[in-house]
Amino acid sequence: MKANFGKKEGEYSRLVSKSSNKLLNSLWEKKQIPEEGWSEHTLDLFLSWLSSHDTNNRVDMIPVGAGEREGRVLTPLVQRLHSNLTHGIGRSGNLLEIQPKALGSSMLACLSNEFAKHALHLLGLHAVKSCIVVPLCTGMSLSLCMTSWRRRRPKAKYVVWLRIDQKSSLKSIYHAGFEPIIVEPIRDRDSLITDVETVNRIIEQRGEEILCVMTTTSCFAPRSPDNVEAISAICAAHDVPHLVNNAYGLQSEETIRKIAAAHECGRVDAVVQSLDKNFQVPVGGAVIAAFKQNHIQSIAQSYPGRASSVPSRDLVLTLLYQGQSAFLEPFGKQKQMFLKMRRKLISFAENIGECVYEVPENEISSAMTLSTIPPAKQTLFGSILFAKGITGARVVTSSQSKTTIEGCEFINFGSHTTEQHGGYLNIACSVGMTDHELEELFTRLTSSYAKFVRELAKEDERINSSGRRIPINESFDMEND
Amino acid sequence: MKANFGKKEGEYSRLVSKSSNKLLNSLWEKKQIPEEGWSEHTLDLFLSWLSSHDTNNRVDMIPVGAGEREGRVLTPLVQRLHSNLTHGIGRSGNLLEIQPKALGSSMLACLSNEFAKHALHLLGLHAVKSCIVVPLCTGMSLSLCMTSWRRRRPKAKYVVWLRIDQKSSLKSIYHAGFEPIIVEPIRDRDSLITDVETVNRIIEQRGEEILCVMTTTSCFAPRSPDNVEAISAICAAHDVPHLVNNAYGLQSEETIRKIAAAHECGRVDAVVQSLDKNFQVPVGGAVIAAFKQNHIQSIAQSYPGRASSVPSRDLVLTLLYQGQSAFLEPFGKQKQMFLKMRRKLISFAENIGECVYEVPENEISSAMTLSTIPPAKQTLFGSILFAKGITGARVVTSSQSKTTIEGCEFINFGSHTTEQHGGYLNIACSVGMTDHELEELFTRLTSSYAKFVRELAKEDERINSSGRRIPINESFDMEND
Amino acid sequence: MKANFGKKEGEYSRLVSKSSNKLLNSLWEKKQIPEEGWSEHTLDLFLSWLSSHDTNNRVDMIPVGAGEREGRVLTPLVQRLHSNLTHGIGRSGNLLEIQPKALGSSMLACLSNEFAKHALHLLGLHAVKSCIVVPLCTGMSLSLCMTSWRRRRPKAKYVVWLRIDQKSSLKSIYHAGFEPIIVEPIRDRDSLITDVETVNRIIEQRGEEILCVMTTTSCFAPRSPDNVEAISAICAAHDVPHLVNNAYGLQSEETIRKIAAAHECGRVDAVVQSLDKNFQVPVGGAVIAAFKQNHIQSIAQSYPGRASSVPSRDLVLTLLYQGQSAFLEPFGKQKQMFLKMRRKLISFAENIGECVYEVPENEISSAMTLSTIPPAKQTLFGSILFAKGITGARVVTSSQSKTTIEGCEFINFGSHTTEQHGGYLNIACSVGMTDHELEELFTRLTSSYAKFVRELAKEDERINSSGRRIPINESFDMEND
Amino acid sequence: MKANFGKKEGEYSRLVSKSSNKLLNSLWEKKQIPEEGWSEHTLDLFLSWLSSHDTNNRVDMIPVGAGEREGRVLTPLVQRLHSNLTHGIGRSGNLLEIQPKALGSSMLACLSNEFAKHALHLLGLHAVKSCIVVPLCTGMSLSLCMTSWRRRRPKAKYVVWLRIDQKSSLKSIYHAGFEPIIVEPIRDRDSLITDVETVNRIIEQRGEEILCVMTTTSCFAPRSPDNVEAISAICAAHDVPHLVNNAYGLQSEETIRKIAAAHECGRVDAVVQSLDKNFQVPVGGAVIAAFKQNHIQSIAQSYPGRASSVPSRDLVLTLLYQGQSAFLEPFGKQKQMFLKMRRKLISFAENIGECVYEVPENEISSAMTLSTIPPAKQTLFGSILFAKGITGARVVTSSQSKTTIEGCEFINFGSHTTEQHGGYLNIACSVGMTDHELEELFTRLTSSYAKFVRELAKEDERINSSGRRIPINESFDMEND
Repeated sequence: MKANFGKKEGEYSRLVSKSSNKLLNSLWEKKQIPEEGWSEHTLDLFLSWLSSHDTNNRVDMIPVGAGEREGRVLTPLVQRLHSNLTHGIGRSGNLLEIQPKALGSSMLACLSNEFAKHALHLLGLHAVKSCIVVPLCTGMSLSLCMTSWRRRRPKAKYVVWLRIDQKSSLKSIYHAGFEPIIVEPIRDRDSLITDVETVNRIIEQRGEEILCVMTTTSCFAPRSPDNVEAISAICAAHDVPHLVNNAYGLQSEETIRKIAAAHECGRVDAVVQSLDKNFQVPVGGAVIAAFKQNHIQSIAQSYPGRASSVPSRDLVLTLLYQGQSAFLEPFGKQKQMFLKMRRKLISFAENIGECVYEVPENEISSAMTLSTIPPAKQTLFGSILFAKGITGARVVTSSQSKTTIEGCEFINFGSHTTEQHGGYLNIACSVGMTDHELEELFTRLTSSYAKFVRELAKEDERINSSGRRIPINESFDMEND
Repeated sequence: MKANFGKKEGEYSRLVSKSSNKLLNSLWEKKQIPEEGWSEHTLDLFLSWLSSHDTNNRVDMIPVGAGEREGRVLTPLVQRLHSNLTHGIGRSGNLLEIQPKALGSSMLACLSNEFAKHALHLLGLHAVKSCIVVPLCTGMSLSLCMTSWRRRRPKAKYVVWLRIDQKSSLKSIYHAGFEPIIVEPIRDRDSLITDVETVNRIIEQRGEEILCVMTTTSCFAPRSPDNVEAISAICAAHDVPHLVNNAYGLQSEETIRKIAAAHECGRVDAVVQSLDKNFQVPVGGAVIAAFKQNHIQSIAQSYPGRASSVPSRDLVLTLLYQGQSAFLEPFGKQKQMFLKMRRKLISFAENIGECVYEVPENEISSAMTLSTIPPAKQTLFGSILFAKGITGARVVTSSQSKTTIEGCEFINFGSHTTEQHGGYLNIACSVGMTDHELEELFTRLTSSYAKFVRELAKEDERINSSGRRIPINESFDMEND
Repeated sequence: MKANFGKKEGEYSRLVSKSSNKLLNSLWEKKQIPEEGWSEHTLDLFLSWLSSHDTNNRVDMIPVGAGEREGRVLTPLVQRLHSNLTHGIGRSGNLLEIQPKALGSSMLACLSNEFAKHALHLLGLHAVKSCIVVPLCTGMSLSLCMTSWRRRRPKAKYVVWLRIDQKSSLKSIYHAGFEPIIVEPIRDRDSLITDVETVNRIIEQRGEEILCVMTTTSCFAPRSPDNVEAISAICAAHDVPHLVNNAYGLQSEETIRKIAAAHECGRVDAVVQSLDKNFQVPVGGAVIAAFKQNHIQSIAQSYPGRASSVPSRDLVLTLLYQGQSAFLEPFGKQKQMFLKMRRKLISFAENIGECVYEVPENEISSAMTLSTIPPAKQTLFGSILFAKGITGARVVTSSQSKTTIEGCEFINFGSHTTEQHGGYLNIACSVGMTDHELEELFTRLTSSYAKFVRELAKEDERINSSGRRIPINESFDMEND
Repeated sequence: MKANFGKKEGEYSRLVSKSSNKLLNSLWEKKQIPEEGWSEHTLDLFLSWLSSHDTNNRVDMIPVGAGEREGRVLTPLVQRLHSNLTHGIGRSGNLLEIQPKALGSSMLACLSNEFAKHALHLLGLHAVKSCIVVPLCTGMSLSLCMTSWRRRRPKAKYVVWLRIDQKSSLKSIYHAGFEPIIVEPIRDRDSLITDVETVNRIIEQRGEEILCVMTTTSCFAPRSPDNVEAISAICAAHDVPHLVNNAYGLQSEETIRKIAAAHECGRVDAVVQSLDKNFQVPVGGAVIAAFKQNHIQSIAQSYPGRASSVPSRDLVLTLLYQGQSAFLEPFGKQKQMFLKMRRKLISFAENIGECVYEVPENEISSAMTLSTIPPAKQTLFGSILFAKGITGARVVTSSQSKTTIEGCEFINFGSHTTEQHGGYLNIACSVGMTDHELEELFTRLTSSYAKFVRELAKEDERINSSGRRIPINESFDMEND
């Protein structure tokens, strides 16, 4: 039975189509994060519109595929989990090229790159000229940058690497076909800071043999973010590329300020950040930012193939959902939460006779000494926290033994330094952490610690009386990543 | 209002839980593609079960994240498009390590690797010992293999590359930090086949400077799949690794037979295939297969970070949905469809005075001469097919000009050979092509061709009378990938 | 990084928007099931477009709700399970009115009504003038029809009801505020057929006291579909409305032919069919069809409120997904499958010494005698079939006892007749049944029967020797619906 | 490649299964809204578990359907929008019966009824003994109650109806087969209140001819919620059922208090409330509450068929998502927002020389006079508000003309009274309204009013000079519902 649709309804329907078209076209024209966030309905509208641009979704004729890869998806569930965008991004080994079969996916890639740039501008990196979202982890993205610079520096064999005890950072150098020259941090009161002089000396000595210097701006206390300003000045002076591993550093205002300053006063060729760690999307992508247009172009061209569009999609959907104003909120919140966490940790440490390292430049991670737990039991304490539902907290013990990674030997791997210490506990406050989580963290930490030392005391009594030790349980390895 | 649930219903409910647990546990125990495909309901059950194993989805307590990356996802739509599996796969720069925070994602990765191996066994590659699904395109996966062999061959600088005119293949070598030694194919009647002798000579001369030989088994006619048997014998004889780019070759029984034979009679270190091209999933992943366990282990370890779990998920869901029997169906269908396409193409070619190249070993792609279209108009003809909704069909013109890719110069790029020819049309029959598509392809091809030559004739008349030429429209570049 | 989008891409994008608009506008203009089915992508496009018409999804301004019900949905999952269409259909107690707040939902309702009419035309009911899809079960829909006729027949108290042993049919009369005059079927060889003479006599006697005659055209053998032609002639002669309960009768060509003939030769006021039973959608809706426009109008007006749009949505999505040609397929398939089932049942019956009732007009359900199972064990046999995963098969035992429903007493309820019989097994072949299901049905039936009679024999031995009986297990009640 | 899953992972996996089972079983055991809300992941887990209980989703064997309705769903999209729960609720004409084919759907129905009861208890209706969620609008639910009481009161013909100008309320009486005796409200200062004496007189006179009294507790100002306490005392005294139409009254603490008091001091047989208006779910369901167990049982039994499970599912998902604490939040918020809205409206009215009616018992809707707009233009003003994106605001004009609904004539329909007035504007604050909406409402109201009176003034000038009137635009009819 037809309802009585008339002129009035017809007009409203035309208004609806016009509004939708205007919204989508204006988004495409501006390629900017909208001021207000979009509803889920509008996100659906956007995804339908976008996927209509891929040839296999044509509605005006039946698409015929006569090639070796035509976006065919067998399983309806899989199709839907990709919102019918199945062609990936890039073409012929250039992530920035438009794939004629998949204009929608190409538009998505373009939007994600522009949104990433806009987001970095909003966060304070105003000088960024160009970004690319890659469906690669941070390590692979660092590799991609180094790879793309190979032709420019044909004599290069080494990357000056400021020690950060995280395997993928080191591996990214070997993956790109280079070897690290490892520079240990130096101690400055509680902090481990960049040994600028050593870097300078190496570059002076090795010159063209150096592909680039890799600095790290987000790390676990007591390591400090690297002194990117000093390094960029050295790089500028000697005409050596400077690669910044800023994995989760977008969360820290101070880090952003330092990267901006490094660009001002020296040389920064590329800054790599994880998507999931900064933008609250699933693991799988990174954004590479550069202060010159052509820096990104050459990186994009060195990618050998077509790639998943999922990280691009996730970033675009998230930034559309938030809008500009809501986008900044969680970053502001992180700052407050970090200070709160720090206060709580200091208070907890005081209560139990420990202390919290002073690492003023690290605004994400804190470290508390564990002098009241015997070194041999510290790892077990970490496992207990994990069993209590706390993830990410990490106990670092000190050790003289060697760890070999890709042929490199490290003493005391995990501590970012060969220097010995008494063991400490790392906790971090990253974007997205809630008040409720923070409360729970300290509730569980407090009760777990109390129970743990009680049981240690009992055990000591037993050992004193019987001479036997209870075995340490096998424990989860709490290493980063 | 409570309905009257009693003993009977309680028993049925226990049966339901038992059946679900049994199904899921048995899947996990066997790690094999099930015989019968699963319904969407069962896939949902599977995804819920899996994601329950990631710590951020704990239902028994509120998870507390105190690290730098805790699987937090801001946008409900994004969360759902990932089925709550947000941690990615791998850990600390090893794709095969279990991430304690994300047991579910780790289980998914493990299942995808085992399913991939099972699938290759079902397709006839019985000797494969180990597989890894990587969230990388084919080119990046080739790079990853080469990268992982670097330490084993410290003097290696070159990769012997059997020319295939597809940019990402060549780029993968540069990306890994090596240079290609290019070997052109030789003509054997219609086919372009492997120049085995030249490869042998190069290896004899360069020995340890060679990282590996890269062969390609899926390509556009008239190029033939490479003679992997002969190459593997040479590689075995000289102890040089052999890397097979089998991008979409799983579709061809003959190719599988040859790879299996190559392994039997010589040396094959890794075989790389695209997920989307062979398994009908979205772009974004590849599967690397090896005939020895430890070959995959070292490849996995050279990946510098944690990676997207999406390609693994897509593969697992698709193979669960199909089950073993239905899995083989589309491959059998492809074989029939290819023969049908070939017959139709020959008949069409005869009608218009063209001929189809005889390339007996290429069971996916065919090529038809375009002698009835002037070379200058051939590209335009390709664009017209695209506008008619045919994707993947590709016109290859002949040219003396040079194309430079990553510093290498190629004459006649796109033709896989420097040799000149009269232009041809490529069409391929890949897995998933339907009868309806094939019918439409020839209907549109026939009518487009007829219209095209009619208009050419008219234009000739006009030119003869007026001397003016109509401009060739800007056209989509039909290059592969 | 912007890709290099140019004129060509702009043109394609405009083509995409134009095609989408054309498709959707043309659907809305024609309000017909499209010839070819739509892909999931196109269904998404459709749903996004539709929901954009509801005011709470406006994209050009923030909607402000100042009423008591504004389509607000709290849970993102719920919102998504409704594709953002949350306002329901109808207005102010008229299901056909347009709700200004929810033009999209109103359009959906309109499309579902027109699609239903188109579907009935395609199935052969060409004379249907108007349909309405209601979010009500068949019984409630029958009630709604009766309710809407009340004002027209102010003296009416009774509905002439041709006994069909299905509770909701009887209850629908009481629900509407009337009482049934029950007419038992008469036996014609194996079949139970309409007692036309008695109906005639009652109408002659009671005249204006009769609201309508309710016939049933889909039922379990050995009951035959009612003789709607004869009844409609009587109704026409005496000016009494005729209501046809065609719950799952659209599956039978013969039933459709008879309803069409009944309309030709007499009077049919409304025909009610279940959505889920005929169109393979979830339970929850019905379609009421009439041969005159105004018949539906008055039914729609008697509905007191706004209603769920879910059944309308499910029907529209399903018919769009199928398209005209594929829509008819499962109906054709049902016909073949029914004949196959019948042949298999006859053959099975012969093997075990039973026989299948000859009920030539019932093309959906069959009945096989159970003389080889003692009456007291027949119900248990039914339960065993259920436990073997067979749903819908139903054992009907004969009984002298009374069942009271809404105050009416029935002897032998479930058998559609007071007449006693030896017990039988009903199975039906409905639209959507697969070959595999049919095979499995007979495999399980055969083995279950064999095992059952074997155990009966053993038990008899035991009883003979010991005098004890094993208890009959509590069993599921296999009653219809 | 298998990752190295060991004992530790096995233990964690068992913990995961145990936690999930515990959560779901405990939910089923308690049948209570959980204290804390559930994540989307947990809702997925719940839906998968539930749908596993429906026979067509069996994972231990292939289900075989041999009946006329087996939960078959053709379209994957539709299947997914129902989370594989396709059987509906109820059986054989009793909404509370368990459907053996669909235990999961039956469990869902049971949970929704228990959750509804729990929700009413949390809101303050502690004496409610039983609830049923029906997939029917409020009007149909009222009908269902009346229908179920028919047998108990065989002489009943009338329902005493306290005039509320909302069509579906009146229609529900006719739908059930009764006629209304209309009692107009009486004026008490600004409010329109219940004429208790007249009700009493009618019941004394008509006695057994009265099926029930229907009161309404949620309505637009200046009508007050009915005096349910006085009416329930009368009903108790004369043993007449009392049906409360509490459509959106759960939002008002005062209304809940009055219903509770009415039950204490007299007789309330059933209280009907809309799901969407109170619980922020899509349109389509209602909850009927009773203070005695058997009252609901007989209502459930009068439903003639099986019904959609969608409203039950939506309610359960929403209450699981909220949890107990968050469930109460929006109700508390509504109270504050209503006061805020009222203050703003009074201030706006003062500024423009209008006043707001004092209707102290109506805590949802407010009314402001429109004396500054000529009666003939008031409707146009309403349309303008709608065009500005304000839905639900409603202009009520006064009129001497008659409106006929189901044969009843009303003077001044829309005003709840025959009494004439000068026209007013209704706005309501319902649960879910946000601060932002409220701000926008007054911003748009203020500017629209200013513009409207400015244009009226201009028009008056023109009329004075030319004598012509500009036509009033066709406008949306702003009637409730």
